[in-house]
Amino acid sequence: MPKKIRADVAVVGGGLAGLVAALWLEREGYEVAVLEARDRVGGRLSTVHQDRYWIDEGGQWLGEGQNRIYGLAFELGLELFPTHTNGDTIAVIDGTRYRFRGEMPRLDPLVLADFAQGFWRFERVVRGVSTEAPWRHPRAARLDAETIGSWAQRAFLTAKARKLFELFISAVFAADPEEISLLFAAFYVKGGGSFRNMIATQNGAQQDRVVGGTQQIVEKLASNLQGPLLLGCPVSEITQDNQKVEVRGAKTILSCARAVVAIPPSLAARIAFEPALPGDKQNLLERMPPGSVIKFHAVYEEPFWRSEGLSGEAGSTDLPISFTFDNSPPEANCGVLVGFAEGRNAQALRKMEESERRRIVLDSFREYFGHPALEPAQYFEKDWSKEPWTRGCYAAHMPPWALWRYGEALRAPVGRVHFAGTETARIWPGYMEGAIESGERVAYEVHRQLARARKGKSDV
Amino acid sequence: MPKKIRADVAVVGGGLAGLVAALWLEREGYEVAVLEARDRVGGRLSTVHQDRYWIDEGGQWLGEGQNRIYGLAFELGLELFPTHTNGDTIAVIDGTRYRFRGEMPRLDPLVLADFAQGFWRFERVVRGVSTEAPWRHPRAARLDAETIGSWAQRAFLTAKARKLFELFISAVFAADPEEISLLFAAFYVKGGGSFRNMIATQNGAQQDRVVGGTQQIVEKLASNLQGPLLLGCPVSEITQDNQKVEVRGAKTILSCARAVVAIPPSLAARIAFEPALPGDKQNLLERMPPGSVIKFHAVYEEPFWRSEGLSGEAGSTDLPISFTFDNSPPEANCGVLVGFAEGRNAQALRKMEESERRRIVLDSFREYFGHPALEPAQYFEKDWSKEPWTRGCYAAHMPPWALWRYGEALRAPVGRVHFAGTETARIWPGYMEGAIESGERVAYEVHRQLARARKGKSDV
Repeated sequence: MPKKIRADVAVVGGGLAGLVAALWLEREGYEVAVLEARDRVGGRLSTVHQDRYWIDEGGQWLGEGQNRIYGLAFELGLELFPTHTNGDTIAVIDGTRYRFRGEMPRLDPLVLADFAQGFWRFERVVRGVSTEAPWRHPRAARLDAETIGSWAQRAFLTAKARKLFELFISAVFAADPEEISLLFAAFYVKGGGSFRNMIATQNGAQQDRVVGGTQQIVEKLASNLQGPLLLGCPVSEITQDNQKVEVRGAKTILSCARAVVAIPPSLAARIAFEPALPGDKQNLLERMPPGSVIKFHAVYEEPFWRSEGLSGEAGSTDLPISFTFDNSPPEANCGVLVGFAEGRNAQALRKMEESERRRIVLDSFREYFGHPALEPAQYFEKDWSKEPWTRGCYAAHMPPWALWRYGEALRAPVGRVHFAGTETARIWPGYMEGAIESGERVAYEVHRQLARARKGKSDV
Repeated sequence: MPKKIRADVAVVGGGLAGLVAALWLEREGYEVAVLEARDRVGGRLSTVHQDRYWIDEGGQWLGEGQNRIYGLAFELGLELFPTHTNGDTIAVIDGTRYRFRGEMPRLDPLVLADFAQGFWRFERVVRGVSTEAPWRHPRAARLDAETIGSWAQRAFLTAKARKLFELFISAVFAADPEEISLLFAAFYVKGGGSFRNMIATQNGAQQDRVVGGTQQIVEKLASNLQGPLLLGCPVSEITQDNQKVEVRGAKTILSCARAVVAIPPSLAARIAFEPALPGDKQNLLERMPPGSVIKFHAVYEEPFWRSEGLSGEAGSTDLPISFTFDNSPPEANCGVLVGFAEGRNAQALRKMEESERRRIVLDSFREYFGHPALEPAQYFEKDWSKEPWTRGCYAAHMPPWALWRYGEALRAPVGRVHFAGTETARIWPGYMEGAIESGERVAYEVHRQLARARKGKSDV
């Protein structure tokens, strides 16, 4: 028989958003219980520790304009350090290898001009969209009727410039441009300020890292919880009436006044709600598939690329590893390269045997940094699609006609059930910053309702 | 404690596809158990009986080229009759009411020419796509990169012709053109031969009806089952190893050699598979949302429109009820109009109070057929989105980049688990015909494996 417990608020999901919401509500004096399906907290934040270094399997970067995550890291006493960017960048574009400083390789000036005009056109779309209510854009229906892939077919004159643009889109969304709505892409990017800000390392979203890994953030948050944190407790059913909410799993039935669902949309879609979710909310959750990315780490005795004047940053329209960065620890007592395979590249690699995949990944590293890349001391891969309690990273995206038609259901509570998670954020959705913002927002929502109820007014 | 039972094959879902598969396998001598979540069989086939008539709440038409469903109706001894089409058709297009015979109202010749050329261009795309493997089309990636909505923006020169085309698209898919991949649309329509065939009444998909309603089909099939039919048994978990499959619900654990999942994709996506489904299958199931349609019936003392020379067929780019048909019983002892609200029209109507919705629906009927339409003796509405064990009709569709990237996973078995349902059909997906074809195909698949196992060879 499942154990019955009570709390003022149940938080479903012990990731960053859920933990922030729980702590915020506890500070306001509420009894909060957190239910987490895994046997650890942190969701898409997970760190593997080795003797001389650590591997962030999931989210790892803090960047320009992300005030909440910088503030939280400071508050928790974590040390930050900048992503290593000294040296030349490598790009492999349409079969040609470029080595360069600055933002762009020395491509044909026509291609560069084409890239710039298309990039600027997209930035203009981004500027016009609000993160609060993108569905209110005067041309929202038109923007949401096509994919950013089909838009790019028109926006660029040269195939090379388009491929370069699509490379950055895939890197940000971990999805192919052909599956992402233009309106959604603009909304998501607007959350980070601009596309330029989102793809940059220095003064951009990939600026800083946490010494020792980002899992410390969620572990420290969890250790501050006063109420129960129930690990290994997936939630299968949420029932509500006008008195209370019951949150049920195989092991527990949690009875509470309000519930916060702080898990990825495609997992929220699997919970059986009673009464059923409103059509728009249901339809939206069914139209938010997660991205697809495999994160690879290769560890070497030393960061050999640095001595050759290379930064470790590289990107390619051709290779299965579309981007790499230098992920060595700050003291550089060993060299760590991180590489990402996104969208269709991830899909192709996922189907291979591990040994073949490893060979192909290291071969990409070799194309970027030379033969020493072929023999790492250690090699790690993390495919978040295989995690039943995440199902894909970095975050969910939307196909056409989801945000415009059902967007208003993204953050709207359903009776006594409230929704958080980085996908619901008004700034930096898909990032740690967005997770925190969504946790704060949902805590405020719940607090407002419960405070009203305490004053003797209706709770609904 | 759940009851343990055994069978050779478990069929999950007692709709048309599942019942056909079960009977086919029983004929081959296998022990089959059917698990159905509802307390009735039939899924999207459901008939309500009144004194003088019946109402098909779900699928109702048999049409040109659907040999299996005609054959089955004959075999089961059901009587058919043609959809009433005598008389003039009404169209309300951009504020103007047209009354006409034949296929098209007398619009501006330029609009008609534009409609014809765009329609023909789509038919040409349809002809080039195979129903067996649409992802192998030489331009599959390009066709799957955009919505049929954004394609129509280019394909038509006049807004009026485009709206007319989109009206037919919405009618076939119960979804907006902006959410449907062009490749998927072509694949789906190819399953019915041509777009013209699909939207026609006489000599088309809406040609004939079953006297007494289509639910008789599934009820008669179910009564022929020899093995157990377990109603009220939703399946939550399917576990397999290289020996057997276990199909679990709250009440039963069914142990079997093979399982057939014959339920809509978005419901299959909620079953917990152990081991987890391969990434491509999972991703595909998460990208097949159901359509959105509300089916309305208004019953009158007599088919008053007939005496005015009207057929009861009407359509509109403006009104919330985008199509109507004469749904009276063959003896016309009363008059029944059926009307459909699809896609965004259904979404808008769904949010209203029932009384307001009724007023708006009957007002559409009035615009088509005059004032007598305002006062039906009875009024019925059926919103399949609100059915937890269907979640939307007519069938699932795909956004861009699902069919091309994950299409091969549509019909592929996963170990000992096989997939049926009209969405997996090679002909007429989304129709009763497709459900039967998928049931036959899956039965053959399972039989081939089990027969091999009986001969002492490996079953996998």
